[in-house]
Amino acid sequence: MIAEVKIMNKFLEQALLYDFYGELLTEHQKDVYEQVVLEDYSLSEIAQMKGISRQGVHDLVKRCQKILEGYEAKLHLVEKFLSVKEKISLIDKTLAEWEEDGKDPEEIVKKVRRIADNIIEEL
Amino acid sequence: MIAEVKIMNKFLEQALLYDFYGELLTEHQKDVYEQVVLEDYSLSEIAQMKGISRQGVHDLVKRCQKILEGYEAKLHLVEKFLSVKEKISLIDKTLAEWEEDGKDPEEIVKKVRRIADNIIEEL
Repeated sequence: MIAEVKIMNKFLEQALLYDFYGELLTEHQKDVYEQVVLEDYSLSEIAQMKGISRQGVHDLVKRCQKILEGYEAKLHLVEKFLSVKEKISLIDKTLAEWEEDGKDPEEIVKKVRRIADNIIEEL
Repeated sequence: MIAEVKIMNKFLEQALLYDFYGELLTEHQKDVYEQVVLEDYSLSEIAQMKGISRQGVHDLVKRCQKILEGYEAKLHLVEKFLSVKEKISLIDKTLAEWEEDGKDPEEIVKKVRRIADNIIEEL
């Protein structure tokens, strides 16, 4: 897990992991995980709704987190996403700078092209 | 699997799928898959090297392909990669057009920014 993810708050990290790998969980896992982690229901509420024990809900959520983190450790999709997002922001910033101070457009073109090529290498 | 992948040759498709999801195979699967599909050893050669039957190698490769395609069906990483790559080429092309005919740079900035924003939505 890279630096950006480390300083992210826990909720955002979990939401991103779920966003990228949620489809690899079973329907039941997705259902419970979404309600506990993303919709912030309490373990007891979900336990009652699903007719399982509070401990069962807790274990299921922990297991899902382990699965999602396991995929990230292998595929690094969240890491790559954050890095690409950063580079796109850099393109935006480079264009904004040009708009503000009208710098040499050739310089801008070179810079944007370099960032764009970096994005491809990143993927 | 999207249009671009469909018209790709089979080898490139297999290589891309392996590139994105290979880490999710076991060491043994990776080993055999790489030698048969990417390095083009024959089934008989690998069978002899690994001390398994030719049919066993064939089944293992087919099973790997199913696994890799199953991940693509859920995560669409190859599809997204090809789409992002296309958009990056579009940025390059837009910049090249500006270099050639010196069009209004504001127009170029707007266009590049729009493509960059599309890339983020894509991910």
